[in-house]
Amino acid sequence: MSKGFLLVISGPSGSGKGTICAELLKRNKDLVFSVSATTRGARQGEKEGISYFFMDNERFQKMIENDEFIEYAKVHTNYYGTPRKFVTNQIGKGNIVILEIDVQGALQVKKSYPEAVLIFLLPPSMDELKNRLIGRGTESQEEIEIRYKNAFKEMKYIYEYDYFVVNDNIMEALKEIEAIIIAEKAKINRGKNILGKLLVEGGM
Amino acid sequence: MSKGFLLVISGPSGSGKGTICAELLKRNKDLVFSVSATTRGARQGEKEGISYFFMDNERFQKMIENDEFIEYAKVHTNYYGTPRKFVTNQIGKGNIVILEIDVQGALQVKKSYPEAVLIFLLPPSMDELKNRLIGRGTESQEEIEIRYKNAFKEMKYIYEYDYFVVNDNIMEALKEIEAIIIAEKAKINRGKNILGKLLVEGGM
Repeated sequence: MSKGFLLVISGPSGSGKGTICAELLKRNKDLVFSVSATTRGARQGEKEGISYFFMDNERFQKMIENDEFIEYAKVHTNYYGTPRKFVTNQIGKGNIVILEIDVQGALQVKKSYPEAVLIFLLPPSMDELKNRLIGRGTESQEEIEIRYKNAFKEMKYIYEYDYFVVNDNIMEALKEIEAIIIAEKAKINRGKNILGKLLVEGGM
Repeated sequence: MSKGFLLVISGPSGSGKGTICAELLKRNKDLVFSVSATTRGARQGEKEGISYFFMDNERFQKMIENDEFIEYAKVHTNYYGTPRKFVTNQIGKGNIVILEIDVQGALQVKKSYPEAVLIFLLPPSMDELKNRLIGRGTESQEEIEIRYKNAFKEMKYIYEYDYFVVNDNIMEALKEIEAIIIAEKAKINRGKNILGKLLVEGGM
């Protein structure tokens, strides 16, 4: 009935995008998670085409050259990227593809794939964002400070996005994102053939 | 937190916009129904400023001249119009104003108030639309035929709208419209001051 689209869930470190995306996928069986390509080796239990598309550096560089990524980035020594083909194939089937990504990545997506729908996840306050960064205990004190400072810079790109959702209560944030998905499906430009059908059925 | 806006619920005769709007207002206490101005006399029980803004023809004409209506129309011998000031006042208070209107009116609104959000209500099929027109028993056979034919013409203006909602099951249509309202509130351009607040609270 409705065309698929790419939904980008983004925000600074500590905004809760990982948790939100995991919950979104659990609750909505019609959503598809974007599968990234990477040059890093597969870890135990990771599956080709489900966890990642694993590939060597040469192939990744070739895909960059051929503009086959919606966005890509080098993290430490490895490359990660979102293959355009995977996304467009899924959208072609009418699916909604979810891409969880940092702010830099989201801005790349907007440039190279302007039809994407971008949601910026906000913490309820900057103090709470810091608390979350500390609370998860995966980063050093120095790393936390860097991420906290980056969050301020990243926040200023919010006007490049389509929607903002404050992630104070996770259930409320989820419901808001689910409402955005319903609304996006109801956009006129996503349902052109519906009218055709209706008028044909009516005997015109 | 979020700026108000004008939400136009429109569609052909028999699409169910009257029922939908009445239910929307019952279920959502934060919505405000747009109050029309009219030159027709008040009926028993109708209240000035709540049912309508009652006025004489001279005043109505003056308001037309001064571009004080977002849209207006002559129905039989009386004028009806949507006063711009009422709408902008309510929006200024952060309210969402609901305007139930036919397709011609909605197109006028779009021209004179482009920030409005337009929803086109569709019947599940043209046969069902005809059944509804017959079923309500308020129009003559001839009038039903006219409305049915007009519906086909009006349908072609759907691409001027922002959203489409198929009104098959009323509860589902309501939920979809409520999702659109939530999504519109979450649009970046409706919440500019949120970021300012957040960064101030964070100590910047």
